Amino acid sequence: MARSDANFFKDNADLRYYFERGVDWAPVVELVERGFADPDGHADVASAVEFYRDIAETVGAFVGAEVEPVAAQIDREGMGFEDGEVVFPKTLARLFKKIQRLELNGMALPRELGGLNVPGIVYQITNELFARGDVSVCAHNGFHGGMAMAALLYSLNEGTTEVDETGRITKTRFAEMIDDILAGKAWGSMDLTEPSAGSDLGALRSTARLDDDGVWRISGEKIFITSGHAKWHFVIARTEPAPGPDAEPGAGLAGLSMFLVKAFDEPKKGDKVWHARFTRIEEKLGHHGSATVAVSYDDSPGELIGKRGEGFKQMLFLMNNARIGVGFESIGLMEAAVRLARQYAQDRPSMGKTIDRHEMIADYLDEMESDIEGLRAIVMRAAWHEELSQRNRLARDNYAERGSAEWKAHNSAHHKHKKLARSLTPLLKYFGAEKAVEHARRCVQIHGGVGYTTEYGAEKLLRDAMVMPIYEGTSQIQSLMAMKDALVGIIKEPQAFVARISRARWRSLSSRDGLEKRVAKLEVGMLSVLQHLMQKTATDKLRALGGRPIAEWPERFLKNWDPKRDFAYAMLHAERLCQMMCDVAICKTLWHQASRHADRRAVLERYLERAEPRGRHLADVITSTGERLLSTLSDDEQTQAAG
Amino acid sequence: MARSDANFFKDNADLRYYFERGVDWAPVVELVERGFADPDGHADVASAVEFYRDIAETVGAFVGAEVEPVAAQIDREGMGFEDGEVVFPKTLARLFKKIQRLELNGMALPRELGGLNVPGIVYQITNELFARGDVSVCAHNGFHGGMAMAALLYSLNEGTTEVDETGRITKTRFAEMIDDILAGKAWGSMDLTEPSAGSDLGALRSTARLDDDGVWRISGEKIFITSGHAKWHFVIARTEPAPGPDAEPGAGLAGLSMFLVKAFDEPKKGDKVWHARFTRIEEKLGHHGSATVAVSYDDSPGELIGKRGEGFKQMLFLMNNARIGVGFESIGLMEAAVRLARQYAQDRPSMGKTIDRHEMIADYLDEMESDIEGLRAIVMRAAWHEELSQRNRLARDNYAERGSAEWKAHNSAHHKHKKLARSLTPLLKYFGAEKAVEHARRCVQIHGGVGYTTEYGAEKLLRDAMVMPIYEGTSQIQSLMAMKDALVGIIKEPQAFVARISRARWRSLSSRDGLEKRVAKLEVGMLSVLQHLMQKTATDKLRALGGRPIAEWPERFLKNWDPKRDFAYAMLHAERLCQMMCDVAICKTLWHQASRHADRRAVLERYLERAEPRGRHLADVITSTGERLLSTLSDDEQTQAAG
Repeated sequence: MARSDANFFKDNADLRYYFERGVDWAPVVELVERGFADPDGHADVASAVEFYRDIAETVGAFVGAEVEPVAAQIDREGMGFEDGEVVFPKTLARLFKKIQRLELNGMALPRELGGLNVPGIVYQITNELFARGDVSVCAHNGFHGGMAMAALLYSLNEGTTEVDETGRITKTRFAEMIDDILAGKAWGSMDLTEPSAGSDLGALRSTARLDDDGVWRISGEKIFITSGHAKWHFVIARTEPAPGPDAEPGAGLAGLSMFLVKAFDEPKKGDKVWHARFTRIEEKLGHHGSATVAVSYDDSPGELIGKRGEGFKQMLFLMNNARIGVGFESIGLMEAAVRLARQYAQDRPSMGKTIDRHEMIADYLDEMESDIEGLRAIVMRAAWHEELSQRNRLARDNYAERGSAEWKAHNSAHHKHKKLARSLTPLLKYFGAEKAVEHARRCVQIHGGVGYTTEYGAEKLLRDAMVMPIYEGTSQIQSLMAMKDALVGIIKEPQAFVARISRARWRSLSSRDGLEKRVAKLEVGMLSVLQHLMQKTATDKLRALGGRPIAEWPERFLKNWDPKRDFAYAMLHAERLCQMMCDVAICKTLWHQASRHADRRAVLERYLERAEPRGRHLADVITSTGERLLSTLSDDEQTQAAG
Repeated sequence: MARSDANFFKDNADLRYYFERGVDWAPVVELVERGFADPDGHADVASAVEFYRDIAETVGAFVGAEVEPVAAQIDREGMGFEDGEVVFPKTLARLFKKIQRLELNGMALPRELGGLNVPGIVYQITNELFARGDVSVCAHNGFHGGMAMAALLYSLNEGTTEVDETGRITKTRFAEMIDDILAGKAWGSMDLTEPSAGSDLGALRSTARLDDDGVWRISGEKIFITSGHAKWHFVIARTEPAPGPDAEPGAGLAGLSMFLVKAFDEPKKGDKVWHARFTRIEEKLGHHGSATVAVSYDDSPGELIGKRGEGFKQMLFLMNNARIGVGFESIGLMEAAVRLARQYAQDRPSMGKTIDRHEMIADYLDEMESDIEGLRAIVMRAAWHEELSQRNRLARDNYAERGSAEWKAHNSAHHKHKKLARSLTPLLKYFGAEKAVEHARRCVQIHGGVGYTTEYGAEKLLRDAMVMPIYEGTSQIQSLMAMKDALVGIIKEPQAFVARISRARWRSLSSRDGLEKRVAKLEVGMLSVLQHLMQKTATDKLRALGGRPIAEWPERFLKNWDPKRDFAYAMLHAERLCQMMCDVAICKTLWHQASRHADRRAVLERYLERAEPRGRHLADVITSTGERLLSTLSDDEQTQAAG
């Protein structure tokens, strides 16, 4: 295999912007380094960021030299499955040994646990680099370090990690798992999906019971488990009875609990004692360097994490981070697609010029590059808020006296950043995944006939991208979440919404900066659609209330909602609303950058050019269509009920 | 393999509409049956149509029972390649034997040549049915009958087919090829693409020279040849020198000629004498039941078709038909996708109801079904015009005395239908191919996780669909053609354009039928964009002329166009314009149906609901964006020129 000289970090000006100017590192480093108290730690923000950059450069060079050149081979070899075990083909096994030698598995873990103590955002950036080389290798690799971090966080959360006076961890509950993963000896996985429960976790049927020896015993079938060949499995299972068929949607979530289950012990290498069984490996369209496994539990012993009945909450706790991870993966794949496409287009002459100079192709490439800049802006911002949310919570719970001024500061910072991270996450997961597919498709198209053959790499990108709108919550789920949060936000705080819309309207009319005006106008458009959806939903619920002031809504509307019916109109348009919200979030973030760094104005301007007509269009569709379809659905329902 | 009971014709109400009421069969049958003169032929239109329907039902049952159930197996087995020959895997070989037994290879050939003498439109409908079963089997199969028809048409065109007084063919030049194919002994193919010439046929480098014995000798490399394992190859090659590097784009087309080349003779079965070599088979993302082959010619003997230098014209002659064929293929694939998706969605419960009742999924399925109705409307209409164009030309040239009233009637009908077929063809090829990809993608998404695995069939549809926007002219080429025809039409006949726009405007304001008003309004929107593009193009060319009446344009603008630069703005937006033109063509066709058959009003109304906001959006984008990108491209060009 040819090694590539490319450094996937150094060759990327937009990514470097975040290291150099885009990310406000100070509050992050402050928390990660616990006020620079650790004598083994960095002395100040600058030296810490220098260290992070070294890591990014190292990974950037590694992926260019070692991952990207073998990606096609890994795709061809796929993952094997023999005698109930997943078999790593040669190329992938060799690659993971090299990754192991980089000693980056515990990158984000604290130094005292053998990690490098870098922020999660830096870890995520290395994921982008890996994903540009091969997205399945990135995903697979993430089930090392990511799961070790999850184990530590779960333990910190439930209070089973001990910390000394300087804040160093002296003992943690899942140390065995963390050590295993750091040593590169084992993988971790997160087992949620079951044959009859995908997006609808309330329908899960796996059970856990406490046996006579006080050991939890887990039974059930889990499918589509990424890196399900892992030794260490976080498993969600039912500890309370399932609700009946007439229960409200979501009622089933209350009875779930989270467990850590060892699929096997390995007292001697190669000599396994099994507690669960790997029953099959999926043959997938792409992602061939990542095993997707079905796992069967039958009275398998597990350890309860946190409290009984908190399983859904435990899952949500990591969900945001996982979804932000898909955002970084998406950027990586999109970088691969646009660079491959541009390279081909620059080299391919047709009709007297290279095809990158044909207007339509130039337009595709321009939009792809602009999409990447836009996506990276909100992904970075979400990762930053997520980091500050998690770090402030940890600092609050582990390093501050309850009720102290410090505690209060961490607490309020945690909540502020959590809210912001949460509001951005479904947007970036939706936008990243959809754009990854679109970019890969365009990459194939720009290649023409050769794009359809297996030797140019374009079709592989499409195959790999196609899972992104499905895993870690489908695009439809993301947009429903974004829509629901937005509408519930209005119901809860109508005054805040009214204030927001009038502020945005004022800026759209009176800002002295033309770009700020345009961003504000885009926001007004989106908020007006939200208002329309709310009004429509409200009208459907209680027709008489159309003309009343928004301030009266909460009292009248907070009761007796039927989510199956009342939100039908908003649910129909959720994906369109989500796209509008993405564009607004991107433009506001880019405006924030542009207001500080003049060279970012062009980035915003380019993005706005496409976001503006798109916003007008989506508003048009949302306000002018849908009645026919909804009345058909409602008629059908009545027919069904009658029949 | 399980046989399916489904009859892909009978279970399709929209398709049956065309047989029963949608197609005006009379003029077609009249020509196909040559005025019912043949004693072996049908007695009247009704009995002919009854016969066509029998064929469609037979094929519909066959595909349901024999093709669809083995499609996954054919996909897995792929095509083999050993010792320079394409090898059919077991399942495909067995299927083609069954197809052979149906005796449908020569379906559209005249009875006296062993065919069934059915219209091309009926043949194309069977292609839709095949494509619903497996699109690669459809494409592969098309290189039987389709190429035999091509051989006959080429011969009729050049006057090397003899006809008796009743119009029966008594002798035709390529009888050997036609007999071979009818007997199921050989395939045909069309060899255009070369390594350095895809869409840009002017860059073709294969050559043909006349040797001392008066035999044409063809040399060169052809790639991406569908069914390139054929015995009979139509090969386009250069008989005049290639133009220099500074020649106008398209200058290279003049020196091309068309040949029929036998890749091999087979005096005894299994004992081949080779005239060309098959050098490789492509490994493709999908279409695994169709061989894509590279063919190498080295002084291979060929027969010149038509006149020297007419190669491009000969190719164009069949191109329309081939592209309409892709339209039927697209419908077939889309039918497969939406039916698979709906079936899954009806069976999959989530959050208290099956997912076909979740608003967003219901919306996807509704749009997919509406797209299919829209696409089928223009594909059928184009096929009908294409049929009447070709049949009238054949009647004019072979059965009428030159200059007679009959000759004139055929001649004018030919030209009228040709123009209409030509204007619809790039639209349906563009729209069908793009929608096929979109539908397949949605089918995967609706399946969620299982859609990403190889066992549910959804991902296969996407892999198969991805070639459609590439082969038979990319989507970009289609939209450029549609744009160019439209703009050149305005330049040539500005008065006709002005009349059309004012007629449409009048209908949009004063029609008594609300649906007709809406269709007219959609048309006005598209025509206004055309006018804008023309004005913009004109303004770029000669800024001073902005305010002058359209009637003055031809004189001032018909000279000295530089297609590289002058149409830049229109070329940038060609795809968007093409989409608008598709929607208008579809709505006008559906309106024509609705005005005769009241039950088609709902079909039009559903389509309009989505086409209207789309039209407003595309007009918005075309008129509000693009300047930045074009000035970047133009700056780069100047920099290049200077540097």
